[in-house]
Amino acid sequence: MPKDHEAFQQAIYSFLEEGATDGLRRSLQEVHPADIAEMFPVLSLAQRVKLLRIMDPEQASLVLFELDREMLPPLIESLGFNRTADILDAMSTDDAADLLGNLPGGIKQKLLDLMETQEAEDVAELLEYAEDTAGGIMTTEFVAIHQDITAERAIQLLREIAPDAETVYYVYVVNRQAQLVGVISLRELILAAPAMLIEEIMRRKVISVNVNTDQEEVAKLVAKYDFLAVPVVNDNNELLGIITVDDVLDVIEEEATEDMMRMAANIDVDEQGPDAGVLRRASRRLPWLIGLLFGELIAGHVIEGFSGTLQNMTALAFFMTALAGGTGNAATQSLTVVVRGIATGEVNPRQVFKVVWGEAQVGLFIGLTSGLVLAGLALLWQDSLSLGLVVGASLALSITLSTILGSLVPVIINRFGIDPALASGPFIATLMDVTSMFIYFSLATLILVR
Amino acid sequence: MPKDHEAFQQAIYSFLEEGATDGLRRSLQEVHPADIAEMFPVLSLAQRVKLLRIMDPEQASLVLFELDREMLPPLIESLGFNRTADILDAMSTDDAADLLGNLPGGIKQKLLDLMETQEAEDVAELLEYAEDTAGGIMTTEFVAIHQDITAERAIQLLREIAPDAETVYYVYVVNRQAQLVGVISLRELILAAPAMLIEEIMRRKVISVNVNTDQEEVAKLVAKYDFLAVPVVNDNNELLGIITVDDVLDVIEEEATEDMMRMAANIDVDEQGPDAGVLRRASRRLPWLIGLLFGELIAGHVIEGFSGTLQNMTALAFFMTALAGGTGNAATQSLTVVVRGIATGEVNPRQVFKVVWGEAQVGLFIGLTSGLVLAGLALLWQDSLSLGLVVGASLALSITLSTILGSLVPVIINRFGIDPALASGPFIATLMDVTSMFIYFSLATLILVR
Repeated sequence: MPKDHEAFQQAIYSFLEEGATDGLRRSLQEVHPADIAEMFPVLSLAQRVKLLRIMDPEQASLVLFELDREMLPPLIESLGFNRTADILDAMSTDDAADLLGNLPGGIKQKLLDLMETQEAEDVAELLEYAEDTAGGIMTTEFVAIHQDITAERAIQLLREIAPDAETVYYVYVVNRQAQLVGVISLRELILAAPAMLIEEIMRRKVISVNVNTDQEEVAKLVAKYDFLAVPVVNDNNELLGIITVDDVLDVIEEEATEDMMRMAANIDVDEQGPDAGVLRRASRRLPWLIGLLFGELIAGHVIEGFSGTLQNMTALAFFMTALAGGTGNAATQSLTVVVRGIATGEVNPRQVFKVVWGEAQVGLFIGLTSGLVLAGLALLWQDSLSLGLVVGASLALSITLSTILGSLVPVIINRFGIDPALASGPFIATLMDVTSMFIYFSLATLILVR
Repeated sequence: MPKDHEAFQQAIYSFLEEGATDGLRRSLQEVHPADIAEMFPVLSLAQRVKLLRIMDPEQASLVLFELDREMLPPLIESLGFNRTADILDAMSTDDAADLLGNLPGGIKQKLLDLMETQEAEDVAELLEYAEDTAGGIMTTEFVAIHQDITAERAIQLLREIAPDAETVYYVYVVNRQAQLVGVISLRELILAAPAMLIEEIMRRKVISVNVNTDQEEVAKLVAKYDFLAVPVVNDNNELLGIITVDDVLDVIEEEATEDMMRMAANIDVDEQGPDAGVLRRASRRLPWLIGLLFGELIAGHVIEGFSGTLQNMTALAFFMTALAGGTGNAATQSLTVVVRGIATGEVNPRQVFKVVWGEAQVGLFIGLTSGLVLAGLALLWQDSLSLGLVVGASLALSITLSTILGSLVPVIINRFGIDPALASGPFIATLMDVTSMFIYFSLATLILVR
């Protein structure tokens, strides 16, 4: 019944308009926090504040975390710092750290000062870790028990401490030095005989990640092994926190967005949201556009070098965009297949030769076919066999080359530890514009102009 | 300690080379199935078969499921249908259905005939659902209890049935008609007083999905609400299965790949893996390349229409690729921001005007700046103020237009229920090549040639 929530959203909206606080309170209890957060973009600031005041801190914390970060500073000012600090106290530490980390320094410090001491300390500690590392996405609320207690005692302990822990689906086992020594799933704990010792039933092989591991690596690990959560340790194997699968879902979506933005459009994902200012969005896109413009001018220089040939036969100009465009498209196809293949693990970047040779064969086939088509069209349109030959041969050669470059460049830069998505489509397309113009006018000069 | 598995992989490889079966068996027990599957691409067919024979069916099933689908038919032939059927019996029903669904019809039927009757029936039922729906990714192995038993009895029941269920983190509650009426998490069940009735502690509001819901919708739902699993029901609200978060991770990665392939390269993701044949890969890419080639020829026609202008001033040709390229790049940036924004929910496609107006403003700023730069360069290079003016003004106008088109097209086709990623970069870039050439030569004819 996923459509139910729309009816409740409508009800909340009506109650807000009427100022009916009781109805509002009742209907808010019926709706998932994610659905309440979904309404915020269309509400006024006063309405947003009203909702956050009526909800209890627990619910408000879940809603607040879901909101677009750019919406927060004015909202917090209107809501008041004291109320916001209460809401943050109710939030899990990793979410609170994530939220605070995205706020201006002044607001962040003021809120930390107003929060409960223990919670504020935990959050401040999490804020020390780089945002895109395991430390930056882990939570410190996890369940750890000692290895020398019984299964029955462990379940009893869970009853006492569980409400504070983000997930109890895995229970981690530590020794007296707080080092991670084992893991047991809640399911295994329940299925075990009550008198068994934890160290008899725990699994001793625990896959963990270091606190400084890149978040993309963590996401790959969780996806590969189908984990619900993964423990985070320091260099001394002391258990510091856990990362749960819901945070990993966010990371995977974030990384796919980043790849797509870099590869297709040469821009970083940050600050392109509809709520960011026009100037900021434009200034993030400009540098590459201008840089590529200079690249394209090299193609212009190549053409100018052959201006004698062009003057003799202006019909050459009619096929320039077809050549440059077709070559760019073929390059982008190869690039996308290889870059995405590396990201999902389907393409092994160590097998450079295999990858490039495969794409080269595909390119040769595509190039010959497309070249034949374009040659035929040029012949029909301009009634010149030699022009058709030049146009077709240029396209065939350029496309073959473009699939080789489109697969070689990402594989090579991946070897140097650079994100292959940075070998973006526009970059390769510009490179191929220069190359294809050189091939085209060279062939034309050789064959057409004697 | 994520690096441990590489040492074990190395050991397995050595044992395989030496033919040391005992060592092989021992080291296989130390390695996660995902790590064993990771080795398969570099092993010979005989080595692959040997590994699958040595492992017990349970472990072999986990490995087999992780393998590239194109690798399977010859492997199954060599392994034997009986052994493969045993392995499939040990697999969870959703994984078995997913695997069988990707095999040729003959092999699929033979294996179903050899599998255990109950398992084969369950799998055959799952195979009826379309691959990209909730039914296609759900498992039928879940835990459901009746509402009128106690918490204590429920935990007892779980002890008995749990080993067969893929996840017991949520326990679903059904009435006598098998209709879904509530849910309780394993955590809540443990924390509850043993004598409480399930209907007293269960949550009655269960978010479920219909069996025919698109898998992308399911993934969005699970990600939005941070679920570990979501129940699947038919139109009569009868519980049919569950979808777990690990399957959703796969869907999110699959959909991101599909979006990227469609948007950047106009190709569907299927059959572009390195193990697919060259001809098949090429034939999937060709249609669009050829189609776009015809599109580019329209640009050629526009240029031919202005051949008088071009003959008078061949210098115009030097800036053609810069104009076409720069416009295409700006269009791709807008397109990527909007398409990805729609996919992640950051851009609301209903607010057409807001989205397009925002991009238009960005485009105007980018266009004017880039235009100014190119005008300056044209002036320096060709020493002609009027040429610089034409080149700069054309770029400014084309870029502004390209950001409008790049944002408008995906928003509009999304309205018609078409995947916005199909408004791909190459398509928009080709459209803009035609438009920018028209603007360029029109302005040139107006200003330069009198």
